[in-house]
Amino acid sequence: MKIGIIGCGYWGPNLVRNFNAQEKADVVAISDLHQERLNFISRQFPAVKLLTTDANELLTSAEVDAIVIATPVSTHFSLGMEALNNGKHLLLEKPFTATGEQAERLIELAERKNLRLMVDHTFIYTGAVQTIKEFIDSGQLGQLYYFDSVRVNLGLFQHDVNVIWDLAPHDVSIMDYLLNRKPEAISATGMAHFENNIENIAYISTYYDNNILGHIHVNWLAPVKVRKTLISGSKKMIIYDDMEPSEKVKIYDRGVNVLHDKEQIYDILIQYRTGDMLAPHVDLSEALKKVSREFVDSIDENRSPLTDGKAGWQVVRILEAANKSIRNNGRIVEIH
Amino acid sequence: MKIGIIGCGYWGPNLVRNFNAQEKADVVAISDLHQERLNFISRQFPAVKLLTTDANELLTSAEVDAIVIATPVSTHFSLGMEALNNGKHLLLEKPFTATGEQAERLIELAERKNLRLMVDHTFIYTGAVQTIKEFIDSGQLGQLYYFDSVRVNLGLFQHDVNVIWDLAPHDVSIMDYLLNRKPEAISATGMAHFENNIENIAYISTYYDNNILGHIHVNWLAPVKVRKTLISGSKKMIIYDDMEPSEKVKIYDRGVNVLHDKEQIYDILIQYRTGDMLAPHVDLSEALKKVSREFVDSIDENRSPLTDGKAGWQVVRILEAANKSIRNNGRIVEIH
Amino acid sequence: MKIGIIGCGYWGPNLVRNFNAQEKADVVAISDLHQERLNFISRQFPAVKLLTTDANELLTSAEVDAIVIATPVSTHFSLGMEALNNGKHLLLEKPFTATGEQAERLIELAERKNLRLMVDHTFIYTGAVQTIKEFIDSGQLGQLYYFDSVRVNLGLFQHDVNVIWDLAPHDVSIMDYLLNRKPEAISATGMAHFENNIENIAYISTYYDNNILGHIHVNWLAPVKVRKTLISGSKKMIIYDDMEPSEKVKIYDRGVNVLHDKEQIYDILIQYRTGDMLAPHVDLSEALKKVSREFVDSIDENRSPLTDGKAGWQVVRILEAANKSIRNNGRIVEIH
Amino acid sequence: MKIGIIGCGYWGPNLVRNFNAQEKADVVAISDLHQERLNFISRQFPAVKLLTTDANELLTSAEVDAIVIATPVSTHFSLGMEALNNGKHLLLEKPFTATGEQAERLIELAERKNLRLMVDHTFIYTGAVQTIKEFIDSGQLGQLYYFDSVRVNLGLFQHDVNVIWDLAPHDVSIMDYLLNRKPEAISATGMAHFENNIENIAYISTYYDNNILGHIHVNWLAPVKVRKTLISGSKKMIIYDDMEPSEKVKIYDRGVNVLHDKEQIYDILIQYRTGDMLAPHVDLSEALKKVSREFVDSIDENRSPLTDGKAGWQVVRILEAANKSIRNNGRIVEIH
Repeated sequence: MKIGIIGCGYWGPNLVRNFNAQEKADVVAISDLHQERLNFISRQFPAVKLLTTDANELLTSAEVDAIVIATPVSTHFSLGMEALNNGKHLLLEKPFTATGEQAERLIELAERKNLRLMVDHTFIYTGAVQTIKEFIDSGQLGQLYYFDSVRVNLGLFQHDVNVIWDLAPHDVSIMDYLLNRKPEAISATGMAHFENNIENIAYISTYYDNNILGHIHVNWLAPVKVRKTLISGSKKMIIYDDMEPSEKVKIYDRGVNVLHDKEQIYDILIQYRTGDMLAPHVDLSEALKKVSREFVDSIDENRSPLTDGKAGWQVVRILEAANKSIRNNGRIVEIH
Repeated sequence: MKIGIIGCGYWGPNLVRNFNAQEKADVVAISDLHQERLNFISRQFPAVKLLTTDANELLTSAEVDAIVIATPVSTHFSLGMEALNNGKHLLLEKPFTATGEQAERLIELAERKNLRLMVDHTFIYTGAVQTIKEFIDSGQLGQLYYFDSVRVNLGLFQHDVNVIWDLAPHDVSIMDYLLNRKPEAISATGMAHFENNIENIAYISTYYDNNILGHIHVNWLAPVKVRKTLISGSKKMIIYDDMEPSEKVKIYDRGVNVLHDKEQIYDILIQYRTGDMLAPHVDLSEALKKVSREFVDSIDENRSPLTDGKAGWQVVRILEAANKSIRNNGRIVEIH
Repeated sequence: MKIGIIGCGYWGPNLVRNFNAQEKADVVAISDLHQERLNFISRQFPAVKLLTTDANELLTSAEVDAIVIATPVSTHFSLGMEALNNGKHLLLEKPFTATGEQAERLIELAERKNLRLMVDHTFIYTGAVQTIKEFIDSGQLGQLYYFDSVRVNLGLFQHDVNVIWDLAPHDVSIMDYLLNRKPEAISATGMAHFENNIENIAYISTYYDNNILGHIHVNWLAPVKVRKTLISGSKKMIIYDDMEPSEKVKIYDRGVNVLHDKEQIYDILIQYRTGDMLAPHVDLSEALKKVSREFVDSIDENRSPLTDGKAGWQVVRILEAANKSIRNNGRIVEIH
Repeated sequence: MKIGIIGCGYWGPNLVRNFNAQEKADVVAISDLHQERLNFISRQFPAVKLLTTDANELLTSAEVDAIVIATPVSTHFSLGMEALNNGKHLLLEKPFTATGEQAERLIELAERKNLRLMVDHTFIYTGAVQTIKEFIDSGQLGQLYYFDSVRVNLGLFQHDVNVIWDLAPHDVSIMDYLLNRKPEAISATGMAHFENNIENIAYISTYYDNNILGHIHVNWLAPVKVRKTLISGSKKMIIYDDMEPSEKVKIYDRGVNVLHDKEQIYDILIQYRTGDMLAPHVDLSEALKKVSREFVDSIDENRSPLTDGKAGWQVVRILEAANKSIRNNGRIVEIH
């Protein structure tokens, strides 16, 4: 399987390395707008045949079976449409597209052409998220109460997108995958502290049925890096701390028992329970290796990948709604 | 100065001990609705003369100069009005009152009667908050960007008030004290996961002028205790972690420089700066000792206490607005 | 049961409070060399009948059934002998005695008089140590490899004893209890950095049979408090961190498999195993309550207490040997 | 400058990459005993001209100016002697040599031939150690009291050397560099828990003049990775925690004041002081880049490198003495 990569910035060399590590795949072509970046890539990966500043060369090359797009999100749709129209399987970096409508059109085209369409929601492929997913799906967490995620750091300011489009795709994709249900409405708050009018801090509340609440705090302007998620259920509670070197997932046997006092019919007694904490062994191998394998395997096996176009679309809709809510001072935005 | 205490539950013995430790003050009377609690208090503090289940005895006693009210918030207003009407100085536990209007009427009455009116915003009297306050007021933080506070734990469920009235008074009083400005609007999200319909998790966004954003996460249902506040300014950033045994305040010399590129007029370059971190020595002595001293001194010196009725009112208004916003799915509530 | 307490300094009020909390016991008499300390105690515990600067009053009082001695270790032996000679049951604070010989004589006298003799090795009664003990005794740790304990802080300098006599009794008593075997030899290193020639830092190595190694680092001169113990076995490893607020004990399913390569007979292959970590729920109730209950129950039930004279003697011998080794620059000291 | 590297295992690619990043240097030849390793290296670094299983080809090649040896320590001496005899500058991985005598002979030969001789004590080149060094040398720490280092983890067991030769070179080289004085004597304890009779846990005490004590705990058999050093002086104390992602060095303004009470001439009063903690900004760039630059620059400038043969010799002597002491159950070994 011959892979072409469009956009080879910070994330690019990781893509090349991981796709080359797949037995069934080879990166044969790379495009980037900057010639000096191509020169750098060329020195690192001398085996790549085609290096070009013109993405069209890849999109139309008969030598390329599948395209990976790692460019700014504003270009995802047009490049993606062209790739599909040229019969290439397609992996898009997160965020999938700039709008839900773009996502729908890509999905529709890929289906029509019977091509694989995948989004690189990298965190879904981590051992940590997989461990939590299995735990929730086994029913051991009990009834879900809330999902609360904080992702802050003194990071690179983007010039083109705000902190929601930059950081929240991670949290939203994890939340979407773990909760496995559609949000009903979004309310978000954010602020731009610099002249560019691009939000650098944002809070997103997501309402689900059954009183499940999601909340995400993303922030480019914090003194330390935090990547911490709390997930609470009626039987257990989970802390997922991605900054921990090995014990990334902690499962607490802590919860609440609601007792009905028969004598006083209006009184509900709430009892706390404190038990063991378990930090299960978590596979720490590189998630991007599994992303690239899933893309290659889904093409090979002619099946939908784990993080397909629909997963990308689902995340983009939440990001879109969050941005709309911010522009309206937190007003609730319903999702249909 | 003779002190009477109404309500002697969990916090009661701390109040007795700290007021007795003041040279100028003596706790002479205590009331509580439960006789067995009074018996317990009596064994611990045999010197207290009057122990009664009838708060009126204290409120009308000629032996009592000042009243401390540590009962559920729903009773603060009526007990407080009676205390002031009987010519007693008044210290109310947090939250000050159940409504902003009640707060206004207490303030008005205290002024008319020339009596001291104080709220026990304990955290304002901690070494940590005092250290941060001095730092901000000295201008070293630069222009304020945001205040973000998380206060979660597997705590006791209240039967009468929700998590906002229970936990957020701490964060709101700290935010109000440190930012020293009036919020313009509030948007809040919350959820009740148990049949009592009392919110056990809530998120409050507070909008200030100059693009300053406040955000508070309060939660009764978390596996571990967190009390962490981020305060970010243009020059420095602060982490205040009350769970740290000694290094509660960390000041990071980290920030962002905005550079204007003259060639490309639309481009704003943002540059990060990473410097030292300083954890200043923080006074760890008991805050309640300073609360009781401030109450006694303000009476003695016939002056307004640091956390006066207005401070209580300011916090109550934010709590009120947050609750109103929650009931309206996060709709913005303006504060005038 | 009527309890008399000799020495009522820092630890004294805790002893009074916990013995009074025992249904079967009452603290009836307290002696301390300082009258102002007795006045302070009297205000706190008005029910105690006899307060005196003369320990002999307690030792000879017909009103006293059992004596608790919380004085400097140099006085333990003479006061203890007198207590036993006067027919009183005896609880000695740690360290039990200043020499192993003193310990032997106390044990011998208590046996002859059929009186209970106990040492307050408080940590043995913590939920954390009990949890670890059960785990080791169940065989789940596998074959023991080592016990490594660090107890350092910016603590109060003792004027009369060095850091070994001050801090190491805790670690040595825990090590002795958990390992449940007699050390064969001791080698210790230490240094006195101040003019008083009293060691403020020390390292103690303890050799057991079966290649089990013990090591203790005690230190009065560190910037932060550390109380951390590693216990490693062939199947599991334990970290006991007493500074953790709740997850004090962590059990790691990590270990080493030794494989014998049949082809290359001299080669031993060592394979690592990384599994789950479990932080079992640990009883956090006050250990001194259990100490006082054990003393009272052992008297009541006419049986040996958990931390009897022999446990005290065992610890003192290791401390004695460690001090001897330090004075000889780490030379090995055998224990018979 | 043309560099040849002998031994290209785990550390090898890092050496190649960092030497190639030096403008003045190029890696032109690599030898390794395993052909498949050479093949792997060849794919990664296609520009290296000579890849051979025969180290002699490098040692005698006219194309090579300087040799880096990254083989097991048992081969350092013979390979190093040959390199020097062939007129090559020499960088040896840690530990420098297997014996002090070997170190002396290499130093002597390099001096005679006027060739650079350097040891790769990588940690000396970290921003953390450089920051601490400057702090100590400026006198701000005051009089040195002790150096205590813990380096433990569930690491790879070596088949040829024990945990002292494997891990302690790091701590000993840091201690030697920071304290900048010669130890007088060593006492060490260790234990081999597996059939190979190679110690997997060891404790090394190092005695210096002026009552300065060094202590190092190295251990292959711990459930978590620890790399923590305490350095205490009369004015300040330092914690250097290499596992911290950014705040690796913390300087505590904590100490002890010794007061002489004139009335009671024998009494020394010791008073604690608790002040601020500062975590200075630490350069986090790759230490090996600075190691390779120092080697190249020292050759270029015809001067002794920072970690010269003498630094290597000094460390080896301490390791040798520690091993001798372990074999004698902790008996003190003097260093002349």
